[in-house]
Amino acid sequence: MNKLAIAGSLAFDAIETPFGKREKIIGGATPYIALSASNFGVKPQIISVVGNDFTQEYFDVLHNKGIDTEGVKIDQNNKTMFWAGVYNTDMNQRKTLKTELNCFETFSPEVPQSYQEAEVLMLGNITPKIQQSVIKQFKKRPKLIVMDTMNFWMDIALQDLEETISMVDVLTINDEEAFQLSGEFVLLKAAKKILAKGLKYLIIKKGSNGALLFSNDGRIFSAPALILDTVVDPTGAGDSFAGGFTGYIASKGKTDFETVKAAVIAGSVTGSFCCEKFGTENLQQLTPNDISQRVKQFEELTKFNF
Amino acid sequence: MNKLAIAGSLAFDAIETPFGKREKIIGGATPYIALSASNFGVKPQIISVVGNDFTQEYFDVLHNKGIDTEGVKIDQNNKTMFWAGVYNTDMNQRKTLKTELNCFETFSPEVPQSYQEAEVLMLGNITPKIQQSVIKQFKKRPKLIVMDTMNFWMDIALQDLEETISMVDVLTINDEEAFQLSGEFVLLKAAKKILAKGLKYLIIKKGSNGALLFSNDGRIFSAPALILDTVVDPTGAGDSFAGGFTGYIASKGKTDFETVKAAVIAGSVTGSFCCEKFGTENLQQLTPNDISQRVKQFEELTKFNF
Repeated sequence: MNKLAIAGSLAFDAIETPFGKREKIIGGATPYIALSASNFGVKPQIISVVGNDFTQEYFDVLHNKGIDTEGVKIDQNNKTMFWAGVYNTDMNQRKTLKTELNCFETFSPEVPQSYQEAEVLMLGNITPKIQQSVIKQFKKRPKLIVMDTMNFWMDIALQDLEETISMVDVLTINDEEAFQLSGEFVLLKAAKKILAKGLKYLIIKKGSNGALLFSNDGRIFSAPALILDTVVDPTGAGDSFAGGFTGYIASKGKTDFETVKAAVIAGSVTGSFCCEKFGTENLQQLTPNDISQRVKQFEELTKFNF
Repeated sequence: MNKLAIAGSLAFDAIETPFGKREKIIGGATPYIALSASNFGVKPQIISVVGNDFTQEYFDVLHNKGIDTEGVKIDQNNKTMFWAGVYNTDMNQRKTLKTELNCFETFSPEVPQSYQEAEVLMLGNITPKIQQSVIKQFKKRPKLIVMDTMNFWMDIALQDLEETISMVDVLTINDEEAFQLSGEFVLLKAAKKILAKGLKYLIIKKGSNGALLFSNDGRIFSAPALILDTVVDPTGAGDSFAGGFTGYIASKGKTDFETVKAAVIAGSVTGSFCCEKFGTENLQQLTPNDISQRVKQFEELTKFNF
């Protein structure tokens, strides 16, 4: 089975939305990425750190879906990272109530030997320097390195961020971040400028407006968002997108435009499932049939005969 | 040739964008609608009013593309409606500098006998009462009646607006307006509630994020926006969308979902062309080849093989 290495946060989340709340569920980027990817016939392998309070039941959530946690350090002197947030009525905004980095504050990733054969490396949204240290630990470069990031790092660590971008193949950001990173305010110009930093592909995530894929040879693909009846909890939707996206590519072992286009749909599929229940709850119980039915919905949504 | 009746404003516009300015060009909704529609092999027929200053050169813009203006009254005692606006640097916002209704203030539409056979009636964004008066003048109901509107009428004439909506088949609004009109904040719920007012189809225009088509039988179609290199002037993009949309349907003489889906693409095509030059300049010179090439671009943009 092809392997997908995933570096990033692993945490406890407390989430409140108009549909209810959860006090202490598995969170951070890597569970969303790994659980989403696990639906595409790959072996997700997490690189992260947890504290002494990350009990077996939480590891089970990952192991039940065949996710490798050899690269997850256990910091016996610290607690697991914790995040608490609440969404407003129309889900457009969320307020962070608490962020306790705990063991994540001194996170120094170590890539196990058994992860070295990864087809794809997915770098969740963490300090650009740490993303770099993960890349450097791979003796054989994975076929595709994908990184997520956010405006925060553009504000406080732009030089490091630019360095990391120059080391990867795919960057996933939203449109506001693309404008900030490029200094352009026309999306196509922003995309070209960012691709010129050495990327093969750029993905612009637009939430309920779908996602755009830009290739460095000028091709563009537009993926719609599914029109969901109910969004219960949007937490982790971007990471679930990244998981479906990289899981699909790792399973195929190819990085051509046609494969990457389909991977954007795979990511849109897992991203949409993620929003329908709290945290990773929906991702834990997906079947291949759920995936293929929803891929069909995406096909239906965009097909036309002129 | 199938006919498309179009009721709405006809005006002079003064427009300034970061790419330049125009002092007195043909504007209002109907020229954008009619010029866009004229590219689909239909006879657009305008119902509107102009003043004594609407000289032959302006009529020629319409007549050159085979547009019928028998239903355009000339108010010899008044000037033509005038609008002036300026766009900010990133084109996200525009400021209205001046709106002079002039002859449009007392507009009382009269549908000529020669318009009675229209396949489709397109009602531009005007007072809901006036939209109703146009509908009532058709002895034989057109196969499809499409109306555009805006939040302004929801604020000051909601009852009239609801009445007009109940008389038409298709409503085109943006997502904010859909939320306002329905009192819902989940798009699918908003769409269902609005369709239940008696519509066959609802179109949600999302500007640079494309458009969504909702059918009253539950089907949904998502049209992407083309990723344009340069937006010179977005004025009239929504009306150009309406023109391509209704022009396509009128030319086919069918209103089934497959036809209406393709019509949404037709509208997206003319809407995208509109933005690339000032006012109606680009719409005046389009060829069937331009249209079909751009339809192909839309196909390329969304096609994938999973």
